[in-house]
Amino acid sequence: MIGLGLIGGSVLRAAKAAGRTVWGATASKEDADKARAEGFDITSVDEALGRDPEALVVLAVPLPALPDLLRKIPAGTRLTDVTSVKGPVHDAVHRYAKEVRFVGGHPMAGTSQSGWDAGSATLFQNAAWVVTPEEADDHLNDVMELALDLGAHVVPTTPEEHDEAVARISHLPHVMAAILAATGADGGPLAMALAAGSFGDGTRVAGSRPELVRAMCEGNRDALLMAVDDALGRLGAARGSLASTGGLAKTIEAGHEGRNTLVNQPQRTKITIDLTKPGALAALRNLGSRGGRVVGLNGSTATAETS
Amino acid sequence: MIGLGLIGGSVLRAAKAAGRTVWGATASKEDADKARAEGFDITSVDEALGRDPEALVVLAVPLPALPDLLRKIPAGTRLTDVTSVKGPVHDAVHRYAKEVRFVGGHPMAGTSQSGWDAGSATLFQNAAWVVTPEEADDHLNDVMELALDLGAHVVPTTPEEHDEAVARISHLPHVMAAILAATGADGGPLAMALAAGSFGDGTRVAGSRPELVRAMCEGNRDALLMAVDDALGRLGAARGSLASTGGLAKTIEAGHEGRNTLVNQPQRTKITIDLTKPGALAALRNLGSRGGRVVGLNGSTATAETS
Repeated sequence: MIGLGLIGGSVLRAAKAAGRTVWGATASKEDADKARAEGFDITSVDEALGRDPEALVVLAVPLPALPDLLRKIPAGTRLTDVTSVKGPVHDAVHRYAKEVRFVGGHPMAGTSQSGWDAGSATLFQNAAWVVTPEEADDHLNDVMELALDLGAHVVPTTPEEHDEAVARISHLPHVMAAILAATGADGGPLAMALAAGSFGDGTRVAGSRPELVRAMCEGNRDALLMAVDDALGRLGAARGSLASTGGLAKTIEAGHEGRNTLVNQPQRTKITIDLTKPGALAALRNLGSRGGRVVGLNGSTATAETS
Repeated sequence: MIGLGLIGGSVLRAAKAAGRTVWGATASKEDADKARAEGFDITSVDEALGRDPEALVVLAVPLPALPDLLRKIPAGTRLTDVTSVKGPVHDAVHRYAKEVRFVGGHPMAGTSQSGWDAGSATLFQNAAWVVTPEEADDHLNDVMELALDLGAHVVPTTPEEHDEAVARISHLPHVMAAILAATGADGGPLAMALAAGSFGDGTRVAGSRPELVRAMCEGNRDALLMAVDDALGRLGAARGSLASTGGLAKTIEAGHEGRNTLVNQPQRTKITIDLTKPGALAALRNLGSRGGRVVGLNGSTATAETS
C-alpha cells in the first residue's frame, strides 16, 4: 500500500482484517508514525516496492504525485490504484510505467475527513468499487478479489465511462453545492437565520476541505466540463421558463424523475460470467454500463448482478 | 384555522395542545373528516369565520385560493397566514380584504409529506416563524404569541426581505436539486449505480411532490429569478474558469465560506424591545435583517436574541 490517507489507510486496515499480509509506505511522516503505532508494517517507498515482486501494489496517492512514483515501480509489478479519476491515471501509467500490469480502481467510499485517522477497516462495506481493466486476466481477478474481500462489490467499466459518470454524480454535486452555498450566504444574516432542511442538505458537501474538492474536480476537467455545461443548459432553460411563462414544470418534473431513478434502482438478477472466454472483458464492461456489478468470484467465474 | 393540510393541521393541533380554543375549516372533505375523527371542532368556512369576531384567524390555503377566501372575511377580522411567500399574500389582502387587520406569517417548518395526516403538534418546535407586520400593535403581539406558544421563535421582517431570503435558501435549493438530479440521471445506469453521498444529499428535496415544489417556487417568481440569475452567473464563471485555466479555486472556496457561514451562526446576545415605543416596528425589522429573533413576550416587551 503506497499512501496511507483516508482511502489508503482504510485499504491497509481492511486488507489486514481480511487476513492478508500487508505493508505500507507514505510520504507523510505523521500518517506513517500513526500506522506504525497501530502495529502496521510501514517502511520506505523503495523498500515497500522491492520487497516482493509478486505482491499486489495499491497506489493511494494524489494525482500530481503519480509520475515520480510510477517511475520507481519495477517492471512486471502487479499494480492497481484507488484514485477518484481514471483517464489521467491510465495515461500516467502508460507513460511512466510501461512494463507494469495495471488495472485502475476507484472505491466509491469516503468521508469529509482525511488522513490516516479518518480511515477504517469497514469503509468499503457495501460500497461500489470501480475497476477499469484493459484485459480480462488473472491480475484483474486479483484486483476484483481484493475489492470483494474488503466488502465492496465490483463495477467494471472503461476509464472514459467512469470519468463521465463520476463527473455527474460526484464532482458536479460538489460544484452545485458550492454555488448554492455561496448564493445563499449572499442573502445575508436573515437568509442564514431562515435556512433549514433543503439548504442544509444541498450545501452539505461544501463543508469538505476545499483543496481536496478542487483536486478531485480539477483532475476530471474534461468530463466535468461536459456535466457543468449540461447543468448550465438546464438552469438557463429554467430561468427562461420562469421569466417568460412563470412556470417551472419541466425543470421540477425532470428533477423528480431523476431522483426517482436513483431511489428506485432496478431489480437485479444473478448471472455468471466466465472470465476465461473470449469477450469476457466486453461482457464485464457491458455489465458495468448497464448498472450491474460483480459480487463474487469462484476461480475464473464471476457471479454478477445485472438489471 | 382555515386550511387543514400539513401546516394548517399542525397549527390546529399545536394551538390546542397549548391550551387554546381552536376550530377549523377546510375545502378538503378528507382532511375535515380526519380532523373531526381526532376530536377537533371542524365546521364550514363561513361558520368558522363568523363564530367569534375577536378570534385570530389563520389562513393556511394555497395562494390561488386566497382571493375568493379573502372576499369572505368580515371587516375588522384579526388575520394572519402561514403561506411560504409573503409579497403576493400582502398584495392579495390589500386588494380583496381591505378592512381586516393583517400580519403575514411563515413558519419555516415542513416535511416532504402533505395533508392532515402529515401534521403534528410539535412541527414548530425550535423553528423560525417569520412575521411581516405593517405596524407594531396588539395584533402583532397576538400573532407573535401564537408562534411562541407553538414552540417557534419569531423573525420579524418585511415581505420583500422575506421573499428574497427564502428564494435563496428554500426555493433555489429545490431548483438546484432538480437540475442536479436530472443531469445525474442523464449519465445512465452506470452513473446511478455509482451515485453515493454527495449526489444523494444534493438531490434529496427533488423527491418532494412536484406540484408542491412548483407552487412554492412559481409563487415567488420575481425573487427566485434574481437568485437563479445569481447562481447562473456563478456556475457560468466556474465553467469559464475550468475551461480556461482548469481551476475551480474561487468557486469551491466561496462555497466553503458560504457553508461555514451557515454552520457557524454568530453568537447571540439577549436584548429587549419595548413594543409601545415609536420605532418599535423598525427595531423589529432591523432585528430580523441582522439575523436576530424574538424568543419571548412579556406584555408589550419583547425578549430578543441578536448577533
